[in-house]
Amino acid sequence: MEIVKYPERAEWKRLITRPERDYTELHGIVGKVLDDVKAHGDEAVRRYTEQFDHVKIGHFEVTPEEFAEAEQTVDLPLKQAIEMARRNIWKFHSEQLHELEHIQTSPEVECWQKYVGIEKVGLYVPGGTAPLFSTVLMLGIPAQIAECREIVLCTPPCQDGKVHPAVLYAAKVAGVHRVFKIGGVQAIGAMAYGTETVPKVYKIFGPGNQFVTAAKQLVSLKDTAIDMPAGPSEVEILADETAVPAFVAADMLSQAEHGVDSQAVLITISEELIEPVKEQIELQLAQLPRKNIAEKALESSKIILMHNIEEAVELTNEYAPEHLIISTRYYWGVADAITNAGSVFLGNYTPESAGDYASGTNHTLPTNGYAKAYNGVNIDSFLRKITFQHITRNGLLNLGNAIEIMAEHEGLTAHKNAVEIRLDAEKEEIL
Amino acid sequence: MEIVKYPERAEWKRLITRPERDYTELHGIVGKVLDDVKAHGDEAVRRYTEQFDHVKIGHFEVTPEEFAEAEQTVDLPLKQAIEMARRNIWKFHSEQLHELEHIQTSPEVECWQKYVGIEKVGLYVPGGTAPLFSTVLMLGIPAQIAECREIVLCTPPCQDGKVHPAVLYAAKVAGVHRVFKIGGVQAIGAMAYGTETVPKVYKIFGPGNQFVTAAKQLVSLKDTAIDMPAGPSEVEILADETAVPAFVAADMLSQAEHGVDSQAVLITISEELIEPVKEQIELQLAQLPRKNIAEKALESSKIILMHNIEEAVELTNEYAPEHLIISTRYYWGVADAITNAGSVFLGNYTPESAGDYASGTNHTLPTNGYAKAYNGVNIDSFLRKITFQHITRNGLLNLGNAIEIMAEHEGLTAHKNAVEIRLDAEKEEIL
Repeated sequence: MEIVKYPERAEWKRLITRPERDYTELHGIVGKVLDDVKAHGDEAVRRYTEQFDHVKIGHFEVTPEEFAEAEQTVDLPLKQAIEMARRNIWKFHSEQLHELEHIQTSPEVECWQKYVGIEKVGLYVPGGTAPLFSTVLMLGIPAQIAECREIVLCTPPCQDGKVHPAVLYAAKVAGVHRVFKIGGVQAIGAMAYGTETVPKVYKIFGPGNQFVTAAKQLVSLKDTAIDMPAGPSEVEILADETAVPAFVAADMLSQAEHGVDSQAVLITISEELIEPVKEQIELQLAQLPRKNIAEKALESSKIILMHNIEEAVELTNEYAPEHLIISTRYYWGVADAITNAGSVFLGNYTPESAGDYASGTNHTLPTNGYAKAYNGVNIDSFLRKITFQHITRNGLLNLGNAIEIMAEHEGLTAHKNAVEIRLDAEKEEIL
Repeated sequence: MEIVKYPERAEWKRLITRPERDYTELHGIVGKVLDDVKAHGDEAVRRYTEQFDHVKIGHFEVTPEEFAEAEQTVDLPLKQAIEMARRNIWKFHSEQLHELEHIQTSPEVECWQKYVGIEKVGLYVPGGTAPLFSTVLMLGIPAQIAECREIVLCTPPCQDGKVHPAVLYAAKVAGVHRVFKIGGVQAIGAMAYGTETVPKVYKIFGPGNQFVTAAKQLVSLKDTAIDMPAGPSEVEILADETAVPAFVAADMLSQAEHGVDSQAVLITISEELIEPVKEQIELQLAQLPRKNIAEKALESSKIILMHNIEEAVELTNEYAPEHLIISTRYYWGVADAITNAGSVFLGNYTPESAGDYASGTNHTLPTNGYAKAYNGVNIDSFLRKITFQHITRNGLLNLGNAIEIMAEHEGLTAHKNAVEIRLDAEKEEIL
């Protein structure tokens, strides 16, 4: 772990730089798989599933029997936990639905927005070491609130050809309509183009490895929208002397255990905090099952000491962390000054884990500094705000002159005519 | 113009297909220019401006003197028209700012969103035959409402090395902070990477030719967010026997005059409408200064006759037009059934021109069927909705168990620890 005390401004850029990840380098290899899926549908998907996942799948779609089996397998405490998370996620995301009322912008000129769920959405949930059923909730529930008509989910099959029961149970709870045992690039291709079995969707959501990310990038250029660009997960803890070293260490480790490329950064104005945090990290790390992963991730982690809170906030906004925990005395004031972050956690009793699972906010967030331009997944991600307008003849009489003048100055005579012909009394005979 | 009567469902797909545009084919040539701008900054921009725009530019940034001159040049009626448009656009977009209140998802678990304008945004306004000052208003005003701190605009210089006065005047009215005389791919590169003169921005907005579109695609893969994918403009008119042929023709022509690749489609359930519309198109076309462009665009336009309004609506939702004019008797009911469109215009007195210029809705809209997944530019496009949460120790006591169970089942022990360590009474000595 690198410890940097009072860095010069010239050094800031290096401190906030993430390891370069150029997914476009994978476009060639990934593009071939996508083209193959586009051309050969299920057959290609089956072939790649055998090649990459080493599983032979006859029937991709999860059956009602498999859902029922999963429901029986998941134990009651987990079901109750999932229900609590579901309720909070539902609450937070449904409150985001403020349909814009009809607005009279000029007399008898009425404009409004109608919120319409994207009709077909595809959720991707990776396999690997952990069954990410929380991601199923985070993507499925807002899709359900947005009333997306077709919500499909792809996730790679386990070695026994099944999907983890918690993932299936979460899919049912979240209102996912169909689940397919397909992973990786072939899953992205199947949802982007459609196959005999998998419906084509209009937008694809969810995390994945570098190949999945590259595939999402590629299909987003022509075929399907995607949620946002992706990169390794990261947390920043912004702390003063009121932070609790054990808590800070626990939060850094919970980021570090995600993967070897995860980033955990502590920016502090309290020099006294540094040693105790380091000690707590050592202490807690030793107990972790995912110790090796966390240890590797910590190698590229940083503790940065700043002169004062203003400077610490400034560096934070430059860094634009995916997750930001603010453990300072006056955290409300600090929160007001935050302009670039994905999700912010205030005070000593608000761990990132809360937002990862159950407080109600979404955990699909912009990494890699993308928080400067993107927000995390929210209800907007699953709908379109279609604009409507209605103008009466009187309304057009009032507004028409402005339209005609502007159209004329842009050299677009037919645009002008479309107003003129409606207002011209003589031509009204046409009616 | 193609006239299709009562198409079989099998034919629908062909009817709604836009001419294929593969901007990725341009990535090679465009990528070289971008790399050059990235490496050589202003020098490269200057070189390409000379090469592509045939103008030598010493100083890219528009000076206060040039702004003052533009303000004197623009005549009063146009200024008044721009003011009316500005007021309506401001009204409609500022009403979209509904910041989410603090929500108690569980007892003492508080979550909310803070809306923060993207700090640096870049607007691109193409040159060419018409000075698109309306686009300056449509992009600049929401950026101003969102309180973006740095709003820059790039637009290619005219042959005299100047920018059209109406564009400069609109930029001032819209609150654009800096205007640069740079066009094409080099403008996208300058804003994506920054040069000695042009600041790097976090998101780029605005229309452009195929090279600009390809450049926006490329920078969006790594460097900068973009507003949305782009394609040629299009309008659909959905009409029954209450539509006015002269109005329908005027609306189709106002789309057709945009460019030879513009699409104008009439979907109607009234066979009697077809001939009068064709006659009106002939009649009105003859008068247009941009007759040649419109004529060419109309060649690929279509009139489609459907059996009934339900079927017409279904085809419309499949087509997902950028602009949709509904000229039917019961247009409110039809509007309710529309699920895929960019912007919808209701009744005989609501021409697309109104939304293009002055009613208040945005004219930067999803083309090419992208309305199935995207909406047009709105206030959201210029801000991030950052999530915040605050949990007390009591709140965490209530929620903690669910978090711990879920983390454990995902195999993420450190996530569990981050809660446990905060709630464990013994360990509270650490405090």
